[in-house]
Amino acid sequence: MRAFVVVSHTGPLTGDFSLSDLPGGAGRIDVLCRCATEAFLLSHGIRKDVWLYLVIRDRLTIALEGSRLRHLNPDERSTAALLRRAITRAQGISPGEEAESTPGIYVRWEDLASLLGRLQGEGFEPVLLDEEGSFLRTAPLPRWPAFVLSDHRNFTPEERELLSAFPKITVGPLVLHGHQCITLVHNELDLREAGWVNGSSSPR
Amino acid sequence: MRAFVVVSHTGPLTGDFSLSDLPGGAGRIDVLCRCATEAFLLSHGIRKDVWLYLVIRDRLTIALEGSRLRHLNPDERSTAALLRRAITRAQGISPGEEAESTPGIYVRWEDLASLLGRLQGEGFEPVLLDEEGSFLRTAPLPRWPAFVLSDHRNFTPEERELLSAFPKITVGPLVLHGHQCITLVHNELDLREAGWVNGSSSPR
Repeated sequence: MRAFVVVSHTGPLTGDFSLSDLPGGAGRIDVLCRCATEAFLLSHGIRKDVWLYLVIRDRLTIALEGSRLRHLNPDERSTAALLRRAITRAQGISPGEEAESTPGIYVRWEDLASLLGRLQGEGFEPVLLDEEGSFLRTAPLPRWPAFVLSDHRNFTPEERELLSAFPKITVGPLVLHGHQCITLVHNELDLREAGWVNGSSSPR
Repeated sequence: MRAFVVVSHTGPLTGDFSLSDLPGGAGRIDVLCRCATEAFLLSHGIRKDVWLYLVIRDRLTIALEGSRLRHLNPDERSTAALLRRAITRAQGISPGEEAESTPGIYVRWEDLASLLGRLQGEGFEPVLLDEEGSFLRTAPLPRWPAFVLSDHRNFTPEERELLSAFPKITVGPLVLHGHQCITLVHNELDLREAGWVNGSSSPR
């Protein structure tokens, strides 16, 4: 299993935004759409062994489950429509509850600390994607990694503190967009699992 | 220098499409938008040493030049608006002419064979991105590679024939979207140029 946790500092908490202005009125939800595309989409199919968590403003968590996910297309606008449905669905639920807005997409009011604790309880080991980290291609990786990355903004000092205990990984010498890092991480894990490269991870 | 040539089999030849239906009425121009994003965008800036060529229906070629490119944002809709301006601008020019629709974006009526000949004349060496190719991480790469890839459709038999003489490269065991291959190729070249890995390419 592979998980990705994307920390969104500006994403919307209500669904009253236009699909024609994703970078503006929708608080850069386009960033989250691209992360969903890269987390799940192969040329002809969806990666089943992936969970993606979008944590919006440290309050709302949208979870996408590859093995049940439906209706995810490569274009940003249709992905934003799916996320808007999830955010709208969240308005009707209480803290502690979870709702499935469309197949394989779940929402709950949950912050980053709670989510990370829950993932660790399920066997995932968080790994921070960070410019200062060890090199992806040679670093040991956990059996069930949960890669944590930020949106277009840096992690806040509070988030850095929360994440300080986890190992850090970097993809290369240039600072890339988060969705590009997801593509690179998937490729590295694909190559290790298929035996094309000899990383330190034990493939599942 | 790095170049990418994306062969679009369904893209639009006129600019009368809606930005709200890129996968449908605009002939999957969303595929080309994602290729532009991956070809040029770093987290905070644009790759200057890149050319991207979008060859639509073997008739219209849109060229994007990193060193002069302006107004390219990460979201698909705004990128589609730039490409629509280019396609609209092309209506007023004759075969053999070129026009700059916005800074760093040029159009001309040119087919794939002519474009490849022109690139080779400028010192680029075409490399085909193909499932059957040599592994990207260990293959020798030319000093000025021009990576050729197809959109959501396979190359036609005529295109395959035209491209048959060029070396082939594959990124890994799974078949990915073209824009994902661009991300992976850039990362490999970044790593070689920075000396993080020891590929067979001589960095420029």
